[in-house]
Amino acid sequence: MKIPQDQKAIEFSDLHNTPGKMLILPNAWDVPSARMFENSGFQAVATSSAGLFASKGFEDGESIGRKRFLESIKSIGKVLSVPLSVDAVAGFGKSTKELKLTVKGLIEAGAVGLNIEDFEHRTKKLFPTEIQKRKISAIVEVGENIGVKVFVNARTDALRYFEGDDDEKFMEAVHRCREFREAGAGCVYPMGLVRREDIDRFLKELNGYPINIMIRAGTPSLNELEGMGIKRVSFGPGASYATLGLLKKISSEVLNERRTDSLINGAITYEELISLTEPRNE
Amino acid sequence: MKIPQDQKAIEFSDLHNTPGKMLILPNAWDVPSARMFENSGFQAVATSSAGLFASKGFEDGESIGRKRFLESIKSIGKVLSVPLSVDAVAGFGKSTKELKLTVKGLIEAGAVGLNIEDFEHRTKKLFPTEIQKRKISAIVEVGENIGVKVFVNARTDALRYFEGDDDEKFMEAVHRCREFREAGAGCVYPMGLVRREDIDRFLKELNGYPINIMIRAGTPSLNELEGMGIKRVSFGPGASYATLGLLKKISSEVLNERRTDSLINGAITYEELISLTEPRNE
Repeated sequence: MKIPQDQKAIEFSDLHNTPGKMLILPNAWDVPSARMFENSGFQAVATSSAGLFASKGFEDGESIGRKRFLESIKSIGKVLSVPLSVDAVAGFGKSTKELKLTVKGLIEAGAVGLNIEDFEHRTKKLFPTEIQKRKISAIVEVGENIGVKVFVNARTDALRYFEGDDDEKFMEAVHRCREFREAGAGCVYPMGLVRREDIDRFLKELNGYPINIMIRAGTPSLNELEGMGIKRVSFGPGASYATLGLLKKISSEVLNERRTDSLINGAITYEELISLTEPRNE
Repeated sequence: MKIPQDQKAIEFSDLHNTPGKMLILPNAWDVPSARMFENSGFQAVATSSAGLFASKGFEDGESIGRKRFLESIKSIGKVLSVPLSVDAVAGFGKSTKELKLTVKGLIEAGAVGLNIEDFEHRTKKLFPTEIQKRKISAIVEVGENIGVKVFVNARTDALRYFEGDDDEKFMEAVHRCREFREAGAGCVYPMGLVRREDIDRFLKELNGYPINIMIRAGTPSLNELEGMGIKRVSFGPGASYATLGLLKKISSEVLNERRTDSLINGAITYEELISLTEPRNE
């Protein structure tokens, strides 16, 4: 039975607020990767913009264009029954009107969650905090108007791109996350938060508000993060990196050792591949 | 320096006729997988229709439609400098005119090789041999007219779908491959040829003509196949199966063991992912 999208949005929001539990979000980049994550038991599935755009031959950022982006998300939305959260980069558009078009299109494509960034990919410049707050409010508003309370994960890249020393970067990221929270973000996502002591400090500054941490080499283990009070982790483009690493390994084995072990062992079947494309939301 | 496409077509044909050497063709399904194979040192890259269509949420066969299919191939062609061979299913069209449109579009997208099947995906019925021969001749003709001698790998599914006992299936596959060779195919591809004794017998029947074998569990090793006189092997959708198998493993580790080893170990970097989308043929 199909779960109505407004209920899925509430369900997704609730996954960030279960005492003692951390939501683990895998980021997909195409139809079979998304469905494989759902079939494997994840409670929700996210997308990675870097992974999705690269798979189609586009750079990271927004060079893919809104139309193609929405088409891709629609194809993924069709095969999922768990909540779908989409990385919407900076919203595909300079004006609030354009941003709203993107958000409306994403909700229609099946999204109940959304990531929004506070910098421009091309220039690596941070948007003013006030402008970003208005964007977040606009997203929340679109969701309310449609009747699907889209859950916003507000990303800040202040730790990377704010001009200042490490402490100034840190405090700017904290400041932005507090402001984004006020504008309606249900979770905040300080990109570049890796070390345990930094995560602990950030958690204290945010007073227990849901923070998203991207899993990468160097981050604490999943159990440690959950114990610290992190409410959500995501793979980012990590699973794209991992599968391409496997192709590199397969290639090296085949070309240098004339072996096909990594190609054949652990592979799924033709029938399973095809089943990963079957629509679910109908 | 860009190698002209007509030269690439000759180079690709020559790779099937190097004494004692077997061409190993990896089948990609999107931009980064194709470029990863090229970067890893393969002399040519092929596509897998099952893998490519599934990644976009389409079933195997031709439900993706010619337009989207050509767009996908174009995006892959843009990032490769080695010869590209495309799995064109049954040619996307019932008439010779439609088939020619497909072939022209594929050559314009950068293909110098082409796989063509002799059955209809929906019904699993084999096309009459004479009709398939005309299709192969038409493909060769389009290539000659454009000035890019497209190399045809003619697949037969007689081993799977011809009505008869195992020996009748085998002899029908042999018959078809001989006929396809006469129509201009540079290589033939009997789908379902797995066991060493069957491959040996097929090679004898074809009198040393290039045969493509799909690598799968149960086929002889790469060195054995080369020693037997096989001129070309391909992965088919095998690398798609392998990467989705890895996603399954990553998911199980994360959800059941709270570990991220398979997600992080062996992964490529962000910079490498982005580099896999950079155009090469310009």
